[in-house]
Parts: sequence; structure tokens; C-alpha cells
Amino acid sequence: MVPSPDSRPPLRVAVLGCGVVGTEVVRLLTTQADDLAARVGAHLDLVGVAVRDVDVERDPVVDRALLTADGTALVEKADVVVEVMGGIEPARSLLLHAIEHGASVVTANKALLAQHGPTLYAAADEAGVDLYFEAAVAGAIPIVRPVRESLAGDHVRRVLGIVNGTTNYVLDRMTSEGLDLDQAVKEAQALGYAEADPTADVEGYDAAAKAAILASLAFHTRVSLDDVHREGITAVTADDVEWAARTGHVIKLLAIAERGEDADGTAGVLVRVHPALLPQAHPLAGVRGAFNAVFVEAESAGELMFYGRGAGGVPTASAVLGDVVSVARHRVLGGRGPVESSYADLPVLPTAVARTRYQVRLEVADRPGVLAQVAAELASRGVSIEAVRQSPSVEGAPARGDASAVAHLVITTHTAPDASLRATVDAVAGLDVVRSVVSVLRVEGI
Amino acid sequence: MVPSPDSRPPLRVAVLGCGVVGTEVVRLLTTQADDLAARVGAHLDLVGVAVRDVDVERDPVVDRALLTADGTALVEKADVVVEVMGGIEPARSLLLHAIEHGASVVTANKALLAQHGPTLYAAADEAGVDLYFEAAVAGAIPIVRPVRESLAGDHVRRVLGIVNGTTNYVLDRMTSEGLDLDQAVKEAQALGYAEADPTADVEGYDAAAKAAILASLAFHTRVSLDDVHREGITAVTADDVEWAARTGHVIKLLAIAERGEDADGTAGVLVRVHPALLPQAHPLAGVRGAFNAVFVEAESAGELMFYGRGAGGVPTASAVLGDVVSVARHRVLGGRGPVESSYADLPVLPTAVARTRYQVRLEVADRPGVLAQVAAELASRGVSIEAVRQSPSVEGAPARGDASAVAHLVITTHTAPDASLRATVDAVAGLDVVRSVVSVLRVEGI
Ligand SMILES: NC(=O)c1ccc[n+]([C@@H]2O[C@H](COP(=O)([O-])OP(=O)(O)OC[C@H]3O[C@@H](n4cnc5c(N)ncnc54)[C@H](OP(=O)(O)O)[C@@H]3O)[C@@H](O)[C@H]2O)c1
Ligand SMILES: NC(=O)c1ccc[n+]([C@@H]2O[C@H](COP(=O)([O-])OP(=O)(O)OC[C@H]3O[C@@H](n4cnc5c(N)ncnc54)[C@H](OP(=O)(O)O)[C@@H]3O)[C@@H](O)[C@H]2O)c1
Repeated sequence: MVPSPDSRPPLRVAVLGCGVVGTEVVRLLTTQADDLAARVGAHLDLVGVAVRDVDVERDPVVDRALLTADGTALVEKADVVVEVMGGIEPARSLLLHAIEHGASVVTANKALLAQHGPTLYAAADEAGVDLYFEAAVAGAIPIVRPVRESLAGDHVRRVLGIVNGTTNYVLDRMTSEGLDLDQAVKEAQALGYAEADPTADVEGYDAAAKAAILASLAFHTRVSLDDVHREGITAVTADDVEWAARTGHVIKLLAIAERGEDADGTAGVLVRVHPALLPQAHPLAGVRGAFNAVFVEAESAGELMFYGRGAGGVPTASAVLGDVVSVARHRVLGGRGPVESSYADLPVLPTAVARTRYQVRLEVADRPGVLAQVAAELASRGVSIEAVRQSPSVEGAPARGDASAVAHLVITTHTAPDASLRATVDAVAGLDVVRSVVSVLRVEGI
Repeated sequence: MVPSPDSRPPLRVAVLGCGVVGTEVVRLLTTQADDLAARVGAHLDLVGVAVRDVDVERDPVVDRALLTADGTALVEKADVVVEVMGGIEPARSLLLHAIEHGASVVTANKALLAQHGPTLYAAADEAGVDLYFEAAVAGAIPIVRPVRESLAGDHVRRVLGIVNGTTNYVLDRMTSEGLDLDQAVKEAQALGYAEADPTADVEGYDAAAKAAILASLAFHTRVSLDDVHREGITAVTADDVEWAARTGHVIKLLAIAERGEDADGTAGVLVRVHPALLPQAHPLAGVRGAFNAVFVEAESAGELMFYGRGAGGVPTASAVLGDVVSVARHRVLGGRGPVESSYADLPVLPTAVARTRYQVRLEVADRPGVLAQVAAELASRGVSIEAVRQSPSVEGAPARGDASAVAHLVITTHTAPDASLRATVDAVAGLDVVRSVVSVLRVEGI
């Protein structure tokens, strides 16, 4: 039985940061206090909230007497420390300090984990305390627990995630409304889905941090941000989105972590973030707006998908509180959650060896024999063609037969190593009959 | 750190049942032994497999020397007992015996949990051992852990589940191919998705057991099979499926557990299983074939969905092994998983007080004033109309104006208590101008 919360001293909880997420964490700790106590078996006593500026106006749910600018002193008097301040420093030092003082810690900080995860895990391991981070990967979506625990008797083959709500919103609006990228980003900014400086989202940095964490979890291997091959969505055009639809696809920014092999057959982990075409029937294709989802292919479990809100103060606080209850229960009932496991210790392989498929759109001379030339170029590099679509001359262009007539060629390849596909595209681009390579996108989810 | 598995005695694992699921559990325990040991921190020693008939031919992965018909003796020598035999007895007695002997237990048996869950939880609590059952709700889909742990700091408002793959396959084939129910059931039987006697699936018994478990978990309240209002899919016609599509819906068999209030304002839990119309844009609407999914609406987390394979020996074994690793880790590292919590102890309310929406299809006399009469009947019971569709006379029927002319009326209501909706349908059926009530389906997911 969970002991009665009144039968033991309360657990002292410190919150570092009181912004979008921190305010909601404080609200839930305050308004749900009785429920939390029943679930934990002890009362949770909020002993302080660390901020940069204690004088700034805040949500009235935050008791001003709890605010402090001295995070170091605060973590020393806590049993459970919640880090929702973001950034690398002082978050990293404060968490290490908390761990050394024997506190269990919960963080939502993906940037910190993607860069300094191993240091933090090692410290927690050494101190015998919990380090939980459900909110760091996909906001409110439970993904860390399922991958770490539910799939502990299985082997993950591949993880495909839509883990950035801003870019999913932008691509979704381009798809459903025919907006171009700039228009969609402006709309996202106006709605508060995108920051004034949207770089971290549209260039894929946020997704890359999450990809590193997902890959580490799924493959029991240390993967850091630097290991992630990253391409953002800035090159995606309205035309790409329209062509995706015509060929039965949608464009999504995917975080991909998968098992693979290099040319020598060495097994390893491949981790990348890039926009990709997904078949419209793929479960991830239906993930609309700012929602997130993570699709997992496991050896025995088969295909799994986890869907929900990847950001927002309130949903993120829900995930943080779930972690707080878990680590607090361990302090009451004994035990610890799963620890970092990097026992598989696989090498991270370069994306060049990833087996993927390309959809390439070309502007070519509109005359017989062009397709044959292009196809020969692919064949000579071992890349086979799955489908070709040749569309009538571009509107307003000279008619076929005219020496300057232009046609649109859309080639979808079968699977081949990424390096071969890249080399093939370069070779095709150099052909006389090819006016331009309009777009190159990977096709995933097959 | 997870201790080295060689530094401590192995944990003894007994498996009860060696059928569709049990065989795959034995296979994973055997083939993944090293990985499991690394994750648990101890070797897992399979000490025996209980079956009815030890002489029957079995998959060669099962070492004949491990087979026994004496389940009682087997559980006495195990640290972890996996129950995958199904049925109530002897599964119930064997699990209780195992728990009394101090073993941690893992079961996939939804029927047993839905009927005797409280007895088993209480015994496990008393003995201080774990009782895990991830595979019992939705096969390979992690749903128990997310609801029990990830949402431990949140409040669930509603759970909508597609938790029976057979009926989802049948309804999906009716939708995509226009098959009628019998044809689709025969197809499901031919493919092994439905049993020779499909009653447990098509009448909703299997889904009802899962609804009871989901409701207990989500609302921290004891809900048993008898508390679940149950309607199967046998009354669903090809015509219903076609009309659903015309009005922008799909028909799914849903297991629903939600918070509600009775007429006096008493808060409680509502639990039901029935076919329902879901808007085509709802995330559950895209769940195809034999896949399962559970959609959760929580106060802070918002909308979450968990998707995957709800049955099959291999996927189910994956979920069982995830539980085995969890309970085994607790034996190595100390601690226990979350225990049953029924602290909220809400009453289970009758479906009559559930607030829902109806889509009613009527054959009515095709003459002016009919809609006004029907609408007056609804209004007098406080049921307001969201949409009406009146379609031209039924094909081949007498033309409008003829006294025997018939029209088709499709009425979708706004939300009202189920009892009012039922009473309204009965009253409408009694009107002179109404030839017949063709179909009544609830509309959910809004
Ligand atoms: N927002 C989301 O939807 C979301 C979703 C998932 C994960 N996360 C993660 O959650 C974390 C917090 O995000 P957020 O959106 O809540 O950030 P935020 O709104 O910018 O809030 C940051 C808070 O931390 C405090 N802080 C920052 N630097 C500090 C320092 N050096 N010393 C003391 N306090 C300091 C700030 O204090 P002042 O108030 O005094 O400035 C502020 O209260 C980040 O790691 C983020 O990646 C956020
Ligand atoms: N199949 C699925 O996809 C699935 C999915 C989720 C959950 N589950 C649950 O998992 C459990 C097992 O399902 P299953 O499909 O594997 O069943 P199954 O194929 O019928 O296998 C049952 C096994 O239990 C043994 N058994 C039955 N009664 C016994 C008794 N009185 N004493 C000793 N052994 C006995 C049988 O022995 P013999 O071999 O000697 O007959 C057989 O090996 C059920 O609770 C089911 O609801 C199944």
C-alpha cells in the first residue's frame, strides 16, 4: 500500500525557473497538492522557486516569498529538484550540485541533455538518485517511459519522430492552405507557435537535440547533438509540398534514429533530422498542426505510435509532474527508476551509409531520349528507379520539339545508400539535357 | 548502476501457459537472455512452463524438460511468475499462490483482471510484490505505464479506445470495401483475426474487459466487468457505414471511460462499449485494420494517443517481457512499481446519465410538415438538433406527394443525457409519420 502521506515528513521540492513551464509546474504543485500526496505517499512541500529576477511581476499562483535568485542554496535544501530554466549554464551546475547533495532531479531541458547527458547520468548513478526527463523529448507525450521500460524486453529498429510542433504547424499550413514557407512562419509567429527568431525550430536544432535523446534511449548508446545530421525546412517550397501531394505524400520534418550498418557490415546507429516525404497512409502523415508524434518500429512489438502535444506550458508541466511523482515515490517506497544504459555502445554511423530513398525533381530538355540518359546515370551507380513521372512542358514554355522546350521529370528511387544517391544527383545535374535539379527530398516511412 | 548480472544469483522465472503468447515469451526469454540480463542486472532463469498437456507437440524453442502440468509446484519455486494461460481458474488461484509465496507476477489476462482485479491487487499489496499487466489492455501498446505513471500528476477526463483488433478489422473492411458484416467477419476468420466463434469480439465482451481495466487505471476507482455497459457491432449494417461516410464519419467500436455526473451532480465514472460514429478527422478514425489505439484526454496534458498492435503472440510477448524486466529490476535494485490506487473511489454511474450525441436515421412519410413534427418531439425533451439531412425518396419508392411516398431523414443531435436521447427516439418512433427507425448510433470524439 502507499503509506498515508501524513505518516511521514513531507518531501521538499525546489523548482528552478518560473517561465512558461515553471509557472504551470508551480500551479499544479499547489492546486493538486492533495492528489499528489495520495499518489506519492508523502506531502510535497514547495520550498523555493529560483529565477533570474525576483522583482518581476509574476502569475499570482507563485508565492513571492518562495522566489530566490540563489539557486545553489535552494537545491541544497531540496529532496526533489525540478529544472525548467533552460539553457546550459547555470542549469548544468545546479543539477550536478543537486545530485551531489542527494536530491532526485527532473528536467525538461533537451539542449542540456543532448550536450551533457552522459555527465548528468553518471553523476546520478554515482549518487544513487533518479534523473527523469520525460518532458524533454516530446512535451506531454509519454515516450521516455515506454521506450525505457515497456520495450525493455524488445529491440527497437527505428524511431521516426515529429518532435517539433512549430515546423509541423508550418508544413501543415503549407499543405492544407498552399501557403509558402514565409507566410506560414509568419502565421505561426502570430499564433505564438514560433519565436520571433525561429531559427532553432526551422533549422532543425530543437529536433536534433530530441533526436539525440531518442537515439540514446532506443539504442542504449551515447548519442550527442554533434552526432546528429541536421537539415532544416528552409529549402522546402510550396511547389515541393504540392508535388508531394500529387505523388501521394506529405512533407514532414522527421527526427530519425535507426539501426544500420556501414559498408564493412559494422552495426551502428544512424541519427538524422531532415524534411522528408511520407506516404499519406503512414500514421505520422495524419499528425496535424502543432501536434507531435513518435513512431517506433520494434522487433517484437511491431509498429507503435505515441501522439500528443509536444510543447506548451500546461502540457509540459503535466509530464514534469508525472516524473516528480515517480521520483518522489522512489524516495518514499525505496528503489530507483531505470538508469541510463549505454551497454550496447554502438558506433554512430555517418548518414552517407543510411539506406534511404530519394524523390528528385528535374527540369529537363523536352525531347526524346532524355529519360534514357538520366536512367543510365542512375543505373551506373546501382540506384534503381521505383517510379517516374514526366509532366508536360512547364506552363508558358516553348512547345515540345522546340530546342528550348522544357519538361518536368519526377524520379522516385528504390532504397540505396545516401552517398550513392547524392553522387547520382550530382552526376545527373551535370548532364547536358538537365536544366536544373529543382528539388531533392528523401522518402521515409516505407 | 545496474549491477553486473554475474554478481548475483539468477532470478527464477516460471511461465504459466505455452500457447500463442506463452511460446513467444519462452522464445524471447531464451533468445534474448544476455540482453535481458544486462537490463535487469541478474540472469533470468526459466525454471518451468506449465501446460495442460505435457505430451503435445510444441515449438522446438520450448525445452520439453521444462514442461509441467503442476502449476502449483512450479510457482513455489519462482521469483517471477508470468501468467499467459488465460481464463479464470486455475489462473486466479495460481497467481494468488505465487503472490503468497512472494513472487512478483506478470499477467496478460484481461478477463481475470476485469473480474478479480481487486483481489489480486490486494494480495500483491499485502505481500509487497509487483503485479504488472501491460499486455492485458492493448497488447503491445504501452498504455498502463503512461496512464499510471506519466499521467500521475494530471487528471484524466476521458479515455476512448479501439481495443479490439477483430472488430476494428471488420468495420474497416466494411468501410473501405463496402462489405456487409457477415462477409467481413468471414474474411477476418479466414485471415486468423477472428475466432471460429467470434462472439467475444463482435459482442464487445473482450473490449468491455479492457474498458473496465482502463477505467480503473484512469480514475483510481474499482471498475469491474459488470459495471460496463456493452453493445457489440452485430447491428451495424453496410448502410450505416455508408451513411457514416456521407456525413463525414467512420464507425468504430469504442471502449469509453469518462468522468461524469448524475442528475444530482454526483461525480462518477461512466464506462461503456458500443459502436459509434467518429469524425473522420479524429486521430482514432485513421486506425486501420487490426491495429488498436487508445486516445486519452487529460486536464493538463491535453489529447494523447497510443497506437500499435493489440494482439498477436509476438507483440503481446514484447509487452509481457517489458513487465518482466520491470518487476525483475525491482527485485534486484529494490523498490516496487505503482500499486493499485482506488483512492478516488468514485461511483460508477449508469450510461443513462452519460452526455452523448445521437445520429438517428428515419424512414418518414415524404410530405411537408414531417420534419416539423419530428423536431417538436425532440425539442419537447430538451434535445436540440445539430444537423438534419433529408434525402430524396428511397429509390424505387412512390414519388413525393403520393400518400405512400417515403423519405430518408438523418438527424444528428447536440449533446444530451443518453436517457433523454433514448426516450426521444422511442417517442419519434411512435409518430404516425415515421415508418421506421432505421438506425441509432452515438457520435463520439467531439
Ligand atoms: N515551453 C515549452 O513549451 C517547453 C516544452 C518542453 C520543454 N521545455 C523546456 O523547459 C525549459 C523551460 O522552458 P520555458 O519555456 O519555461 O522557458 P522560459 O519561459 O524562458 O522560463 C525560464 C525561467 O528560468 C529562469 N532562469 C533563466 N535563467 C536563469 C538563471 N541564470 N538563474 C535563475 N533563473 C533563471 C527565468 O527567470 P526569470 O523569470 O527571472 O527570467 C524564467 O523564470 C527549457 O529547457 C525548455 O527547453 C519547454
Ligand atoms: N493471443 C493474443 O493475441 C493475446 C493478446 C493479449 C492478451 N492475451 C491473453 O494472453 C493469455 C493467453 O492467450 P493465448 O492466446 O496465448 O492462449 P492459448 O494459445 O489458448 O494458450 C493457453 C496456454 O495455457 C495453457 N493452459 C490453459 N489452461 C490450463 C490449465 N488449466 N493448466 C495448465 N495450463 C493451461 C494451455 O496448455 P496446453 O498448451 O497444454 O493446452 C496453453 O499452453 C490470455 O489471457 C489472453 O487473453 C492474448
